[in-house]
Amino acid sequence: MTKQEIFEQVKKKQSYLCIGLDTDVSKIPSHLRNASDPVFEFNRQIIEATKEFAVAYKPNLAFYESRGPEGLRSLERTMSIIPKDIFTIADAKRGDIGNTSAMYAETFFNHYRFDAVTVAPYMGKDSVMPFLNTKGKWVILLALTSNEGSSDFQNLVITNKSGESKSLYEEVLGVSKKWGTDENMMFVVGATHPGTLTSIRKIIPDHFLLVPGVGAQGGNLEEVSRDGLNSSCGLLVNSSRNIIYAGSDLDFAEKARQEAIKMRDEMKVLLDKYCL
Amino acid sequence: MTKQEIFEQVKKKQSYLCIGLDTDVSKIPSHLRNASDPVFEFNRQIIEATKEFAVAYKPNLAFYESRGPEGLRSLERTMSIIPKDIFTIADAKRGDIGNTSAMYAETFFNHYRFDAVTVAPYMGKDSVMPFLNTKGKWVILLALTSNEGSSDFQNLVITNKSGESKSLYEEVLGVSKKWGTDENMMFVVGATHPGTLTSIRKIIPDHFLLVPGVGAQGGNLEEVSRDGLNSSCGLLVNSSRNIIYAGSDLDFAEKARQEAIKMRDEMKVLLDKYCL
Repeated sequence: MTKQEIFEQVKKKQSYLCIGLDTDVSKIPSHLRNASDPVFEFNRQIIEATKEFAVAYKPNLAFYESRGPEGLRSLERTMSIIPKDIFTIADAKRGDIGNTSAMYAETFFNHYRFDAVTVAPYMGKDSVMPFLNTKGKWVILLALTSNEGSSDFQNLVITNKSGESKSLYEEVLGVSKKWGTDENMMFVVGATHPGTLTSIRKIIPDHFLLVPGVGAQGGNLEEVSRDGLNSSCGLLVNSSRNIIYAGSDLDFAEKARQEAIKMRDEMKVLLDKYCL
Repeated sequence: MTKQEIFEQVKKKQSYLCIGLDTDVSKIPSHLRNASDPVFEFNRQIIEATKEFAVAYKPNLAFYESRGPEGLRSLERTMSIIPKDIFTIADAKRGDIGNTSAMYAETFFNHYRFDAVTVAPYMGKDSVMPFLNTKGKWVILLALTSNEGSSDFQNLVITNKSGESKSLYEEVLGVSKKWGTDENMMFVVGATHPGTLTSIRKIIPDHFLLVPGVGAQGGNLEEVSRDGLNSSCGLLVNSSRNIIYAGSDLDFAEKARQEAIKMRDEMKVLLDKYCL
């Protein structure tokens, strides 16, 4: 999928909502537990109820892998019913030496047919490049994550090969943006670091950012949108648990729909104000 | 498995060899292709031929995941036949926010029953801690990897919160060693950085290190052993392709066995010289 196609979705839906399909079999409504594949049945109803308002779905691989091969079957089934014009992200945070990263690219782009995969930067350029070799597919590189531990290393002050001092995450952004383009790379920037988006936009004005951490983790949608939206939108704001577990009864999908509509309504206003 | 149990294996086998099961279905001997599960059949024969000389097996997850759920079935079957006294490492390089890392711990420790999993440090403490909560299980944290891209970020000079200057990988070692103990944490240190092991041993004298990069990638076993062996051995030196693809014909397992014996013979001498 191209950047322009993502932006067309945003304009059509007036939304830059990414829904995280972190589907935990122990948390889905009890009436689904007798389905032949409860996780898939849950996802199917969530997707059906929210697809008008979401521009991306992001299954988190851990939730599928923890059930072994059967869990991956649920993922295959889920991928098969996501409408083709909605962007799909494998939240997998992979990254390994070249021949191994090439295998992961095969996994997510060819086997499961995701549009994008999240990748960790620690192993450097040759661990990321194999993901950039498939036309129309995207790397979403971790830059500044939303969790508390992001301060352990990502915020360290480094001195780079040109003698410049900056945060490690700023160096990751500045170096890695040259590995691809804004047509095949995005970056993860958590919403839990107020004030950082303005300086991040100076380094990567045109790239899309995948933003976790709005809502339960404390990030503010208005602030993120004000500082992060660009002329092609440039943001995919993720919500997982707030939406998919909005209800826990027979009407769970309708509850999820209501949460998605609430996010879309806020996003519509913010797009008018800061982007379109 | 405890550190002492690993050391007992080392002493019994006179070896600190870890064999990487990076089994690529396109590279296995053609006579296996008609087996009901060719990857498992390949692994079964490799394990049978090398288990006397290996103290650890390390399946690389990418090679199994790339075939979808079926690939993970091959992994389940492989795990079921590795002798229980041999240490097993899921080379998965995971790491995510807390509830997600907990799911990955469930995946590798409970579902597939690995003893250890490799984890990337970029997301910090709360992304690693969930892996340290299972008694007898291990995190093997990436510190200084063997690939060319390791110099992109791991070698950057950082200034930490105490005002000390050091390489990022040294900071990762110094900070993360406090998250666990030498009974539940190991570190990945590539063999392709001559001279670094001596300074790394000053930071973590007692931890086991998982060392990739000997052989094809240019690392030298004698040098790694001289600088890295400690009084409990403290090294697991990995070899993947050199061993498992030593032959490509009917006698592939025998060829793998010969390569493993060659490594064991070298290691026996080095253990005498630098450890036992």
